[in-house]
Amino acid sequence: MAQKPSIPKGTRDFLPADVAKRTYIFETIKNAFRKYGFQPIETPSFEKRETLLGKYGEEGDRLIFRILNSGDKMKKADLNALENDNLAVFANSLSEKALRYDLTVPFARFVVQHQNEISFPFKRYQIQPVWRADRPQHGRYQEFYQCDADVVGSDSLLYELEYIQLFDEVLTSLHIPDFTIKINNRKILSGIAEISGESERLIDMTVAIDKLDKIGQDGVVKELEEKGISAAAIAKITPLFDLSGSNSENLEKIRGFLAESEIGLKGIEELSFLLEQIEALGLNRAKLEFDVTLARGLNYYTGAIFEVKANGVKMGSICGGGRYDDLTGLFGMSGMSGVGISFGADRIYDVLTELQLFPASLEKGLTLLFVNFGEKEQQHCLKLLKEVRANAIDAELYPSFDAKMKKQMKYADDKKVEFVAIVGEEEMNDGLIQLKNMATGEQEEFSLEEMIDFLVKRHNAY
Amino acid sequence: MAQKPSIPKGTRDFLPADVAKRTYIFETIKNAFRKYGFQPIETPSFEKRETLLGKYGEEGDRLIFRILNSGDKMKKADLNALENDNLAVFANSLSEKALRYDLTVPFARFVVQHQNEISFPFKRYQIQPVWRADRPQHGRYQEFYQCDADVVGSDSLLYELEYIQLFDEVLTSLHIPDFTIKINNRKILSGIAEISGESERLIDMTVAIDKLDKIGQDGVVKELEEKGISAAAIAKITPLFDLSGSNSENLEKIRGFLAESEIGLKGIEELSFLLEQIEALGLNRAKLEFDVTLARGLNYYTGAIFEVKANGVKMGSICGGGRYDDLTGLFGMSGMSGVGISFGADRIYDVLTELQLFPASLEKGLTLLFVNFGEKEQQHCLKLLKEVRANAIDAELYPSFDAKMKKQMKYADDKKVEFVAIVGEEEMNDGLIQLKNMATGEQEEFSLEEMIDFLVKRHNAY
Repeated sequence: MAQKPSIPKGTRDFLPADVAKRTYIFETIKNAFRKYGFQPIETPSFEKRETLLGKYGEEGDRLIFRILNSGDKMKKADLNALENDNLAVFANSLSEKALRYDLTVPFARFVVQHQNEISFPFKRYQIQPVWRADRPQHGRYQEFYQCDADVVGSDSLLYELEYIQLFDEVLTSLHIPDFTIKINNRKILSGIAEISGESERLIDMTVAIDKLDKIGQDGVVKELEEKGISAAAIAKITPLFDLSGSNSENLEKIRGFLAESEIGLKGIEELSFLLEQIEALGLNRAKLEFDVTLARGLNYYTGAIFEVKANGVKMGSICGGGRYDDLTGLFGMSGMSGVGISFGADRIYDVLTELQLFPASLEKGLTLLFVNFGEKEQQHCLKLLKEVRANAIDAELYPSFDAKMKKQMKYADDKKVEFVAIVGEEEMNDGLIQLKNMATGEQEEFSLEEMIDFLVKRHNAY
Repeated sequence: MAQKPSIPKGTRDFLPADVAKRTYIFETIKNAFRKYGFQPIETPSFEKRETLLGKYGEEGDRLIFRILNSGDKMKKADLNALENDNLAVFANSLSEKALRYDLTVPFARFVVQHQNEISFPFKRYQIQPVWRADRPQHGRYQEFYQCDADVVGSDSLLYELEYIQLFDEVLTSLHIPDFTIKINNRKILSGIAEISGESERLIDMTVAIDKLDKIGQDGVVKELEEKGISAAAIAKITPLFDLSGSNSENLEKIRGFLAESEIGLKGIEELSFLLEQIEALGLNRAKLEFDVTLARGLNYYTGAIFEVKANGVKMGSICGGGRYDDLTGLFGMSGMSGVGISFGADRIYDVLTELQLFPASLEKGLTLLFVNFGEKEQQHCLKLLKEVRANAIDAELYPSFDAKMKKQMKYADDKKVEFVAIVGEEEMNDGLIQLKNMATGEQEEFSLEEMIDFLVKRHNAY
């Protein structure tokens, strides 16, 4: 036999049981997005090269999958570039299209391209795969789904509020028992840099501070020193790393620290608004935590920054997001403030698996299988089957009467069939059906109408 | 301003209204697949090059999108091949992965790879995009969805029967008023070639006959002559081209013609079984027509061949399918008979558009928008909004109280909002909500509970 075929590293096949679980996650997210007024869009899997390249930094550019030009276009390969080891230029000469790397840049392109067909503020959601030429490793894939919601064309803080509610709603719906929504504001970070006299080094500073979780306070101090942040500045800001009070206590401390920074105080004001609103409206299961060390891809965000973690599970963040002020500026349309969030479906899948939170109903297989006893019975059962399906019940007739009962029952087991309908000659003559519950082994006799009634009611009770 | 960004030719963006219509088609197909016992799987967007290449003929290979290798792997470019104009080899040296071209070959690969994790007969459905480097033209895209159902591991004709019922059910559910399921059997075609003494030229013959619809009887005869089919053979088979009787009359004629061909009679027997079963079980809106000229990618199919056309619309087939006996043999697993069908979602979309068959309910926008009158009202409405959403009603609060009423109402219009909730100071004090129906202009006063009750009932009535 030939070698078993396989798929590229970092990609996955999904069997029916996987698809059921993934669909459950996607549908939960989708329903919440819709309920909050977001509308779905879809963009092509590949974009023009120039739409994507240069938007994700150097490292990002390297991780973008490019599509090889077809046919004679390949002859335009820039061999000089290859010789000079200029692989990016060589790649450009061979490819005009690339697979999307995230949903954010295609969304920005979409908004600019269709600005006359949509109305603002435009609230869209998008659940599609993205591709990255990352080295495959545990929990990191070359193809994975992103589930994004964004609003562009408004700077209203009510959207930030809405996203906190959305995180809470989706993750509560998925029965995750304990999770924390961390929140910060880029303007507060700017203020801190300003007050400590290091405005010029805002990014270095926040990149270091963002690692507090991973490398601890000493590690952050060390990195700040290495980056050339002054000792005075470091002394000034380190007390901010271990704020242990309530959100409002911490906020007051930082407010005091930022008293002389206009932008910092603006950040405090924005954050206060959200904390007060959530205080008034309440949350389901989410904890909301102001974390002044939260930065996440800072050069991108300009206002609120979000990150969500499941507590009691060893795993990075499962959701993130924030406000950006000029995303569409990349494509020549300026002045459009936006704010967006993303659910990490793969990580959520892992959390639900680890905590055994997938509902048992997802494992339900086919509702009804007719056993196939012989030619006459087959003819009879085909008519019954048609009626059953006409009542929206998923059902099958075993496809052959040559197969022994044992084989047919094994098929039913493998397919996690709920009920088996047994219609032999006697039942045929009496117009009856023996219905066997495969989980309990119980068997009951029904007319066709009674059986349909029974199954429909059972289904509606789910 | 910079030039407006755009997407590659042959690809499409889908705005919310498009997504709603496409989702309607996909969900209708999915629901029917599930009801018939098919289970969903998903495969990666790209496969290893060797999985795809050589499976679709030379033309197919040229239409496969390849992924350019990243980084240092590009240095392995086979420059000799480029010099010698051997572009296929040059492409191979630069790419190890390729985007899937259809769902059938990945499915065959999947079955072989996961043979120990699935049970047979295995009924799977798969609705995912595929990519082809076709020259973009009207109605032909480089990225489009296929909606496939296949069974492998059984040669039972009950599956062919099931597919006829599935075509009927899906297209009837989509309200297509008049459509024909054409059916033929490869064994009948083999028998005709055998009887006319041209077994060796089966493919040439059937490729010509398959064009009857397009080039007429004279055209077919001309092509048969050009292909070197003997005059005697042509004279023998031409009467088969215009069978004008009923299915059973035509079947009897062909049965007579094939009296000496074992394989031909086997095909007749299979076809008779299906026609009889459908006669006994009935169909909704579909017409079932035996068409002896139907061949569709013949080298692939070994038994039944299906094709579905919407009548009264100028458009190619909207569905197709057939039986293949050795698909998984490509990957070293032989003896697995399979039969599958595919719904052409894009063409179905065009048919529904042309015949104006999309349900009006798809155009329904947001259910409820709260007008935003001022800070106090905003605070009040946020609480109401939370209650409304907790009752699974999709709703928003206009994100700013600085916007004039006119602007807020334009937003409601653009978003096709069904109801606008007006809560000014007076309503706030009285605990009431003015609910305005945006279609009729009618306005009614409710308490929060009454309004929720009204909207939930209305929603359930859909």
